[in-house]
This record gives sequence, C-alpha cells and structure tokens, in this order.
Amino acid sequence: MTRYLLLFCTLFFLVSCTESTPVDVKTVTTESELQDAIKNANGGDEIVLKDGIWKDIAIQFYGEGTKDNPIILRAETPGKVVLEGNSSLKLGGEYLEVSGLHFKNGFTTENAVIRFKIDDENIAYHSRVTDCVIEDFTNPDRDSKNHWIELWGQHNTFDHNYITGKTNQGPTLRVFLKGNENVNTYHQIRDNHFGPRPRKGGPRAETMQIGDSYTSMTPGYVHVEHNYFERCNGEVEIISSKSNYNTFKNNVFFESEGSLVLRHGNYATIDGNIFIGSDASEFIGGIRVINTGHWIVNNYFYNLKGNEFRAPLAVMNGIPKSPLNRYNQVTDVVVAHNSFMNTNTPWHFGVGANLSQAEVLPPSEIRSARAERMIVANNLIHTDAKEFKALKTYDSITGVTFKSNIINVQNKSEYQTEGLITKDVKPSDITKIFQAPQNLDMEMYKGFGFNQIEEDLFGNKRTDKNGIGAIVTSIENGAALLDTSNYGTSWFDTNPPKTTPKTIKVSNTSELTKAIAESVHGDTIELSGGDYEIQETYAFAKAVTLQSSSTNEKPVLSFKNIDKGFELQPRAKLKLKNIVLKGEIHTDAFATLDKNMGQSYELWLDHVEIDGFKSVLETSKASFADTISIKNSVIQNTVRGIQLNKETNDKGDYNAGFVFIEDSQFTNVGMNILDYYRGGYDESTIGGSLFVSRNTFTNCGIQEKSNILLKTRGIVHVILENNTFKNNPIKTIAVLWGEKGQKPINNTIVNSGEIKVVQNLKLKLVY
Amino acid sequence: MTRYLLLFCTLFFLVSCTESTPVDVKTVTTESELQDAIKNANGGDEIVLKDGIWKDIAIQFYGEGTKDNPIILRAETPGKVVLEGNSSLKLGGEYLEVSGLHFKNGFTTENAVIRFKIDDENIAYHSRVTDCVIEDFTNPDRDSKNHWIELWGQHNTFDHNYITGKTNQGPTLRVFLKGNENVNTYHQIRDNHFGPRPRKGGPRAETMQIGDSYTSMTPGYVHVEHNYFERCNGEVEIISSKSNYNTFKNNVFFESEGSLVLRHGNYATIDGNIFIGSDASEFIGGIRVINTGHWIVNNYFYNLKGNEFRAPLAVMNGIPKSPLNRYNQVTDVVVAHNSFMNTNTPWHFGVGANLSQAEVLPPSEIRSARAERMIVANNLIHTDAKEFKALKTYDSITGVTFKSNIINVQNKSEYQTEGLITKDVKPSDITKIFQAPQNLDMEMYKGFGFNQIEEDLFGNKRTDKNGIGAIVTSIENGAALLDTSNYGTSWFDTNPPKTTPKTIKVSNTSELTKAIAESVHGDTIELSGGDYEIQETYAFAKAVTLQSSSTNEKPVLSFKNIDKGFELQPRAKLKLKNIVLKGEIHTDAFATLDKNMGQSYELWLDHVEIDGFKSVLETSKASFADTISIKNSVIQNTVRGIQLNKETNDKGDYNAGFVFIEDSQFTNVGMNILDYYRGGYDESTIGGSLFVSRNTFTNCGIQEKSNILLKTRGIVHVILENNTFKNNPIKTIAVLWGEKGQKPINNTIVNSGEIKVVQNLKLKLVY
Repeated sequence: MTRYLLLFCTLFFLVSCTESTPVDVKTVTTESELQDAIKNANGGDEIVLKDGIWKDIAIQFYGEGTKDNPIILRAETPGKVVLEGNSSLKLGGEYLEVSGLHFKNGFTTENAVIRFKIDDENIAYHSRVTDCVIEDFTNPDRDSKNHWIELWGQHNTFDHNYITGKTNQGPTLRVFLKGNENVNTYHQIRDNHFGPRPRKGGPRAETMQIGDSYTSMTPGYVHVEHNYFERCNGEVEIISSKSNYNTFKNNVFFESEGSLVLRHGNYATIDGNIFIGSDASEFIGGIRVINTGHWIVNNYFYNLKGNEFRAPLAVMNGIPKSPLNRYNQVTDVVVAHNSFMNTNTPWHFGVGANLSQAEVLPPSEIRSARAERMIVANNLIHTDAKEFKALKTYDSITGVTFKSNIINVQNKSEYQTEGLITKDVKPSDITKIFQAPQNLDMEMYKGFGFNQIEEDLFGNKRTDKNGIGAIVTSIENGAALLDTSNYGTSWFDTNPPKTTPKTIKVSNTSELTKAIAESVHGDTIELSGGDYEIQETYAFAKAVTLQSSSTNEKPVLSFKNIDKGFELQPRAKLKLKNIVLKGEIHTDAFATLDKNMGQSYELWLDHVEIDGFKSVLETSKASFADTISIKNSVIQNTVRGIQLNKETNDKGDYNAGFVFIEDSQFTNVGMNILDYYRGGYDESTIGGSLFVSRNTFTNCGIQEKSNILLKTRGIVHVILENNTFKNNPIKTIAVLWGEKGQKPINNTIVNSGEIKVVQNLKLKLVY
Repeated sequence: MTRYLLLFCTLFFLVSCTESTPVDVKTVTTESELQDAIKNANGGDEIVLKDGIWKDIAIQFYGEGTKDNPIILRAETPGKVVLEGNSSLKLGGEYLEVSGLHFKNGFTTENAVIRFKIDDENIAYHSRVTDCVIEDFTNPDRDSKNHWIELWGQHNTFDHNYITGKTNQGPTLRVFLKGNENVNTYHQIRDNHFGPRPRKGGPRAETMQIGDSYTSMTPGYVHVEHNYFERCNGEVEIISSKSNYNTFKNNVFFESEGSLVLRHGNYATIDGNIFIGSDASEFIGGIRVINTGHWIVNNYFYNLKGNEFRAPLAVMNGIPKSPLNRYNQVTDVVVAHNSFMNTNTPWHFGVGANLSQAEVLPPSEIRSARAERMIVANNLIHTDAKEFKALKTYDSITGVTFKSNIINVQNKSEYQTEGLITKDVKPSDITKIFQAPQNLDMEMYKGFGFNQIEEDLFGNKRTDKNGIGAIVTSIENGAALLDTSNYGTSWFDTNPPKTTPKTIKVSNTSELTKAIAESVHGDTIELSGGDYEIQETYAFAKAVTLQSSSTNEKPVLSFKNIDKGFELQPRAKLKLKNIVLKGEIHTDAFATLDKNMGQSYELWLDHVEIDGFKSVLETSKASFADTISIKNSVIQNTVRGIQLNKETNDKGDYNAGFVFIEDSQFTNVGMNILDYYRGGYDESTIGGSLFVSRNTFTNCGIQEKSNILLKTRGIVHVILENNTFKNNPIKTIAVLWGEKGQKPINNTIVNSGEIKVVQNLKLKLVY
C-alpha cells in the first residue's frame, strides 16, 4: 500500500512539474535516437527509453531544465529498461531527472555507474535520479576501484533507489566536494534502500562516503534521510562522513556490520536514526564519533553487540594536532535524548587510545587527545542483563560531562558518574523493538542549544511533553520506519520468492559430473559409496552440497591428471560431507579462479578426508572467502594446507573473513597448515577471524621455510585452544598478537616447537 | 563633522533603545555603589560612572537586558572616566552596553582588559562595548601574556573604540571560539581605530586573532568592517584569521608592518580593504593566503614594498596532510577584481616552499603542497616602474588559473600567462591614492560564483557598470575611508599637539645631572668640552640627545664606581653625539632595566668614543631595542660589545629589531663585539636586522669562548660588508645563514679567522 502511495507521489511529481509547458515526449529505441533526443531536449521535455535491454550504453544526459520544467529521462515502464554490460549514466546541467532504470548483468569501466557530472564543465545541479536499481553491477576484480553513484554539483537528489551487491573496492555512493562548484551541496539522499553489501575483507568498502580528508573542511550540507541500510557489511564504516554540516535523519541501519562514522569534518547532526543489531554478530555498530560540534540526538540503538570501534556509541581519542587525514580530537559534541536498548556496554570513550603501541607507531598515529567539552545528557539505557556496564573507558574522560541520564539497572562499570542515575523504568512491551518505557520522570538537563531538540525520534513534539531518551510519547510511527516497502523503488522486489532446493542422487562419475553441471543454487548431490575417478575440474558458482548417501560408506573421489579438484568461483558455497578426496602432488584439492573473483565464496568441509594433494586450498589475489570451515576431517600426506596469503601489498586487504579448523587431524602436511595474512596498519575491517580448536597436528611442517606451522600475521581474531601438537619438526607453531588479546589456551605440545606471543606488531602505515 | 555625526548616531542609538521602558538612570561614584547598581539593574536601566579616576577596579558587568531595553553602563562624560592601575571590565549576560571608558596608566593582571565573559557560566551575548579607549595599558613584562579585548559568546559588538600601545605578548584583540556557546558568533568588530602597536621582536603580537588552530574548524562568522589599522607593527600578522566564514570588509591597513593572514580556517571573505604601504618599509604586507575557499575581492593595494610572507598577495604552499596547527594547502581560492597599484611584485605564489630545508626540518614542516583550483581573475596591476615582474613563484603553480587580468607594463617575470594582459591603462590622477584608470575595457572572466561580486571597493554596483580591478566608476567615497576621524571614539584625540623641544646647555657634572633629570621628551642637552666625573647612573625613559657643543672639543664623561653608565628604560631614545665615555671594568656603558622593560628603547651613537667598560650595551630578557645605531665611533679596551642575547628560550623572541654598526673602529674588545640571538623556528617576525659595514676590528676576541667575534645566530637579515678585520685572535669572525641570502661582501681579513656561511640552520621547533 505504502509502496503504491509512493509511486503515486512520484508520478504526481513528474506530472505536476511539467504543467506549465506542453510536454514533448519522445520515445527512443537506439543509442543514436537517445543522443539526438538529449541534444534537442528543452525544459519540460521527456525522453522515454523503450522497454528492453540496453547493452553497453554510456548515457550522457545534459541539458538545461528549469525548476518548473525539468528535462526528464525515464524508462518506458519503470524497471523494464535494463542497462547491461558496460553501461553508465552521467548527468550535467540543471534540472534533469532520471527514473526507472535497472542496471544489472554487467559493470562499468567508468568511475561510476551513475555520476552527477559529465566533466568539469558539465556538472549537475538541481537534478534527480529516482526509482532506479543498481543490482550486482560490480567489477569482477575486487582490487579495481570505482563508485556506483557519484554526487557532484549542488542541490541534487538521489531518492527511492535500490542499490545492492557492490563487492569491489570503493564506496558505493560517494559525494565529491572538491571545488567551489561542489560545496554547500544541499544534496538530498533519501528514501533509498541500500541492500546488502558483502564483507569485502579490506578497507575502502563503505556504503556511503561524503567528502574525503582533503575536502573535510568544506561545508557539505548533505542531507541523508529515511534510507534503509540492510546488511551493509563492506567494512567498519557504513557511512563515512568526511565534511561539515551533514545531516543524518531517520535512517535505519539494519544488521549492518559497521557504524555511521563521523570520520572527518564537523557539526554533523545525527537525529532520529535506528540501529538494529543481532545476537549473531558482534560487528554491528552504532555511531563512531571523531571531530567537533556534532549533535547526536533522538537515536535508537537496539540489540547491538559491537564493542570498541563498533560500540553503539564509540567516542574516539584524537591525535594531538592531528594530520589532516588522521584523527582529530573530539570537542563540543552533544549526545542527548538517545535510547540504548539491550545493547552491550553502550558507551565507549577513548576508543582507539593507543599510547601502549608507541613502540610500533609513529607519534603522528598516537591517539592520546581525549574528548573535551562533550555533553552526554538525557539519554536512556535499558537492558535485560543483570550485570551491566554502561561505560567502557580506554582513557581518562574528565572532558565529558554526564547529566540526567537514566539506566534501569546498577551500572557496574569502573567509571561512575552522578550523571547516570539508576531508575526502575518499565519497558512498554518487551517483544517490540520500540519501547516507550514508563517511570522516566526526572528533571532534564537543559544545556546550551538543547531547546533546539524540538522533536523526538518519531517527530512527536518535545515542547508538548519532553522526556529522557529518544521517544517521548507514542511509538505508532515506528512500524513504518522498519517496513522496507517504504524505501527504494516502486517496482523492484527485494525479497524474491525462494526456490525449493532439490536432491540429486548419483552413483558414478558421469552422473556426478552431470549433476554438478545441472544443479542449481541450493541443491544437494548425494553420492553413493564407492570410487569416483575424476579427470576434470568441478567448478562451482553456486551453493551446492555434496554428501554421502550414507555415513557408513564414504564415496572416494580420486582426482587424476588435473591441477584443481574443485574450482571455487564467485558465489560458490560448496559443502562436502562424509566424502574422501584423493589427489596427486600437483593437484590443489580446492582452488579459486586466478582472477575475476568478484564475489566471495564459501567452503564447508565436514567429515572429509583429504589425502595426497598439493594444497588443501589455493587462492588468488583479490579472492575472498567469507567462510572456510573444516570440521571433523582428516588432512594427510599433503604438501600444504590452506593458503590465504595472496594479499601482500599491505593495504589492509585479506583473503578470508572467517576460518574454522576444528576437531580435525592433520598428519604429514609438509609445509604450513595455514597461511592467513593481512598486512598494513588498517582499522577498517573485521581483520580476519581464525578458530583453531581441538585438532591434532602430527608430523607436519618439515618443509616449511618460515618455520611457522600456523601463519596468522596481521589477523585480528585468533583462537588457538585445546589442540594437540605432536612430533612436528618445526620451530614455531604460531605467533600470536598479544595486543589483540590473542593467547594460546590449553594446547598440548609434544616435541613441536613453541607458540609465541608478541604484544605489538609493526605494520606498514596505509595512509 | 563626521565625528559629530557619529557621536549623534551613537547617542541616538542609546536613547532610542530605551524608548519602551522608563529609564532608571543611576550615577555611581564608588565601587560598591557600582556593584549594587549592577546587581539591581534591569533591562532599560542605565548605570553612569561618575567622571574621574577609578583606580584598581575590576568591573563585572552582568545582567539580562533585552533587544529593546539593554542595560547600559556608561561614563558620565565619554572619556572623562579613567580606569587606572589594575583595572578591567568583564561582561556576562545579554544585551549589555558599555561606553565612554578610558583605560590608561596601568595594566591588568587579568587575562584581558575587556572581556565578553565573566566565567563559563556567564558569557556575554548581544552585548556591546563602544566609544572606549585602551591606551598604553600594557604589561611591563613583554614575556607576560594577555589580551586587551577578549570576545566570547555570540552576537557581540566592539565598535568605535581606539586601542593603542600594547607591547607585551598576546594579540591585542582575541576572539575565542572554544565551546558551542562561542561559535557562530556573528560578532561585529567595526569602526574601531587600532592605533600603533610597536614591533615586539617576537611572535604572538597580532593586533587581532580570531580563533586558534584548535578551534580552526569552527564557524566563526566574525565580521570585521571599517576599522583603521595604523602602524600595527607587532608581528607579521596584523590579523590572524583562524576560523571559518569570517568577513573583512572596508578596513584600512595604514603602514602596518604585517599582513591580513588567513592562517587557519576557510571561506573567509576579504572584500574592499585598503592596504597602504610606504617606501620606507619593506615589511608592510597585504594578504597572505593559506587554506580553502576564500574570496579575495575588491581590495586595493597601494605602494606596498613587502616580499614573500609580506607580499601584497602571498599565496603559501601547504604541508601535505598538514598537522592541525601548521599549513594547509591552498585550494578553491578566488582572487578577483583587486587593484595592485605601485607595489613591488604583487603576486607571490608558493610562498614558504621549503623543500630545500629538508635537512633541517622534519617532514611535518615541509611545505610542498601547491595551490590547487585557485582562480586569479579580473585584477588590475598598475605600476610606474619600467622593469616590472608581476609574479614571483617559489614553486610550480599549475594549480592556479589566471583569467582576464590587466597590467600596464610588460610583465618581465619568469612565469608568463595569457591570463595577464598588458594594456596601456591610464591612471586618473597619479597624485592620489585611489585611481580609477581608463582604458580597461576587456571581456571579464565570469567564474563560478562571480555573479556574487555585486559591488566594487566603494560600494558602486557592478551590475550597472562592471570592470577590471577594485574600482569601477567613482572614487568619491575613497577620501572618507582614509580619514581617521571616521574611526574610533567620539572624544579621543589620536593626534595630540606636539610640544616644541628645547636645548639645555651644561658645562659641569651637576648641571648635566640636573639637565638629565629635568629634560622632557625631545630635548637636547649640549655639553661644553672638558671632563665630567660621574658617580651615578643616568636613567632615561624619554627621547634625549646629549651632544657636544662643539665638534672640535668632545666632552669626556668618566663613570666611576657604578655598574651602569646610562640606564635605558622603556621608551628611552638616547642619542649621543661627539662625546667620549670612559669607564671601568665593572661598568656597562649602557644597560637596560633588569625587568619591566615594557616598552622598546633606542640607542643612537654618532662620533662617540667608548673606552674601558665592561660591556658597550648590556640588556635583560624581555627587553627590546627598536634600533641600536653605532656610527663613526671608537670602541676600545672593553670586555665585550653589544649584548642582545637574553632571549634564549627559543620561542622566536629576540632583543633588538635593527642594529647598525657602521664606519666605526673596535680595538681591544676582549670577548665578542656583538651577541645578537634569535632562537626557534619562527616566521612571525622581521627576525632581526644587522648592518655591519665599513668598520675596522683590531685585536678583538681573545677571551671569547665561543670563538666567534660577531655572533648572529638566528638573525634573519645580516649585512657584513666592506669591513677590515686585522689581527683578531679568533677562529670565526661570523657564521652567516645562507638560506636567508646572507653572504660576506668585500671584507678584508688579515690574520683574523674566517667568515663561515651555513646554508640551513637547525632551529628548535616552536609549535
């Protein structure tokens, strides 16, 4: 219903804008017709792209419309004009409007898919792109950089679009503020649905970036309102605000692994946004604060489990007299009337304090400048937990004033303040996300400028009835904010019906080969016991499970005379259960493509035996495994194990997000078991996660030149516990990173070298 | 006439503001009456300070007036209320107004003489200080820091005041932007007369500073309009703008040794200001540009002889990714419609480029980031010179675009551009400062935002008739801008009548002693020939000349049993001509006070013989000689020479501005001839000037431990030419500083060590 209302509004807008001039509507079917139409278009004209597929088309839409008579370029039917291949759209001029396009099945070799600028002489002003979709239009090389939307000029609007699936380097949407033509923008970015952006496994994967450090002194005045950010997991910054006077209002951040980060620039307003977390991820954050003069009010933080950089509210330490591109001190920031509901410790202060790393960092990287003149007032913290710490402080916080904040339990944190009062507030309905707790009556703090906080999260007037927290009275407007149908286009279905997966039974090699070729995403192939001799590589770009039809008799797959057993292509999600793999010394059991790994892949092995291969997993640069899981398996007589070591340019990238090696046995692996590498002093990512538990390693590593069995340099999360290392002719089992809390737990080591812990790691500076 | 008009307006304003409420006028005569009156004042009330001297009074003026009914605190008669001793004024509250006060004969031990804030809880808003004078109310210790006016809060006005004579550390007027209560100020600083501020001989002597590097990201919105800056010579920055969105409009900078400097912060508007130089000083500058987005339009630069940092237009190189407190790159700056009339090379680009000093400076001090996206358009350069260079470039300037600029002669500079066109423009009347040259017809550049340059220097509409340069048509409004009676108070005479100096003749010691005691500023004492035995120190805090009544027979002054011969106190300007001074080994011929040298002094010796002293001149820390001149004189049998070496904390301070040693003979000076020191990497000052020419040095330096005869470390300008050094048992005559262009010229050295030149000097970083 709401969706149709929006559609109606959009159409009404389109129609009403053209009232004053007779509309010249020109439908075009070819590129040259389009070019002619653009060339001849005047204010009020409408250029209609014929429904169908437009391939490899680079549209340069220029012209001079007027406020009342814009020039319109639109799909004949919204969503039925598909731009494929190497396609892009550039706008330059005034009062231009584009709607209804669908970018998919391709990628652009331009800087951007949609760009509000043709060249320096043709920048867009007062122009609009609406009701469009960019879907998986991603560059196949993760290391190749571009943007999908570039905003330039002033007074442009990007609204009601759906954007999803960017995996290569570069923010999805980028606002440029370079040059007086592109400041004081008053751009509107609103009502869009930013769909999932997968983890990139490296920095430069924001969903939105507004300015950069070089233009961080400019007045951006970018207005970001009522957008839905769904699982935007690219990196630690969902939005990176890098300019002044930007506003973020009533946006929903749904299970997005990152934060709204005030990275550079000052005087942002973050008003009435909703951050929704999940018990399943401790990487979903809230707001991270750097710089001066921000107002963070009326925001609602729900079920967030992030910490430190990803805390619900992370207030960073700055670098004294910071270089332009690093961390300025937090000063004059106001955090008022927010609600923190069922989060982990919501307030983290002095985040990034790193004086203890002075031995490995230059002085220009040491964040020792504490927040000053900061006010935290009239906020509500509510939790179901019995033992709860409201604050975590990484440094002294004498520069922060707490006034009239309420918490429903005893605050057990080390830092105590009279400005945080325990009161037995009652939630209204604990099954609902939005709560308007009772029993909040208390005198509020009235700081300088607080009278300008006129409304609550839902627009209820605070002048009528004011109160602690983000919600003062009614929560009835809450449901609409969480309804994704109120965001994005009028036509694109962001939740297509799921197909039912099927199971295919096979009992010999040719059946297996055929089944693999014909299986579709989600299918399972069940192999009966017996030997399968395979002389070709099985390639996967979909989710497929290969499993034994019975746990008693495992099928044995023997690979002969090939380099790769299984090839993991983009989007592969390959699961093997109860299967034996036999190989040759020149064969990698699993391997990615050598390039064009534009999407991540997954590999899950359970009760699998791998015997006689070159590598367990070989990967390529710019490939990224979301998850690799080896459980209950046996790996033996193999040259080396899992090779996630191709991102060696030390810019923060790495080859796998999560690696599980559990309850397995490794015997006679000649070189390393694992080489998992992340280089460069970067804080933009999860940084890799490795779980090595309850395995037995025997007689491995004899050929390993580095003399390290489990190589994990630069990986942030490493668990190494309850393993047995027996008779491994190696000097070092692993080198753990003390500063990240890594330590060996309960491992048994017999005649197998040692596990080292280094406190600080010297990493190459990235910036 | 104009003055009376202003007075009338002021009075009218005072009266009209109080129309709506019956005025409660309370005249107070004591401090306690004043305190009571303030305590009980309501909007519309007027507190009148009784005429007379108020000593040691710290006024805290607080209250809540309203827009229509301010609370007024005023002198009974403007100018007749004199605040002396340790006095100060603080304002806190809303709509307060102070007028008619005269601060003199004292100094404050507070942070400021006038402060728009009592404490953090009592800041002034919408308040005004007008028609007041602060005259020589300076701290006697140059090293002690304060301000005279501190602006805090928002919407305050400081207007029609006269301010002169600050000599101690600290900007005269300082705007504070720390804290949200003090940003977006919209302060008005207008119609003031900033009278002479002497050279300080060290940094931190600006006449106005708006913000600081720590608050340079704040929106200042300080409006500085129609002020007259007369010989504001404190340091290299007359105004140091260190915040965003400040406006400088229609101010006159008259023979002020420094520049309007956009030191930190961005988006300043410098519109219609007048910079007037003098042939007599190459230290009078114009505008120095750092940072982003400034608009420099309609300004008039006349007869400026400054270069580099002090060029009419100095565009600096930045430090790449500069630390907060250093030099940001220049980007997106517009310089349009300015007139450069009879200046030296007006445009200096890449000022401060210092890659060549990389061996002595850390990377964080290297200014290698060139101006980018800068537009220089529609400007006029006019000169009487035949050979003329319009540009000096210290680095590549490819990031600067020149469009439609006119020059009346051939531009002989190395850098050539089509954007600077030679045209035979005719000045209207070369005897006048303001010129509206003819023959300027040319197509102008119309850049982004240029349509907002709506008026010329004098407010003539550019929409009616536009043109190159600052003046489009009439110059009739020019005279009023240069008339000092249109600035400052209604009552203070900035040009008091001069007294006629007299000559006193003396022929013996007691007459001399009496004459020195009784002489007044400007007098001459004429000594007849013969011996004068003196057993007391002669102290001077005025300008006095001692000279022989005949050049044939020089009077001989023999100092006995004292430490100092002549004591140079603040304001001393002692000239000796044709006099012989004889002393003892424990006597300094000339010496300053040990402390409280709150004003500079001068010493001029011509045909003077100095024989048998400890030092020629001994000085104290924080003392400052504007000029020391020794000409045609003989110095012999003395332990050491001129000691200007007490500022050793390496913060950029030094003990003398100009030192001339010319046509003189130094014989048997045991230690150094001169020790003239400036420490610290500071660029805020002239940096000391030394002229050593045509002297003979014989048999000097035998006891000098440093083994340097003329010690000049850190002094910027050193001339060493045509001297003869003969049989001086010393290793080094002098160490010159190559980077500053110092080199020995035509000196004769016989058996006397060497003159060294070091290219780069390693100095302690100050910031």
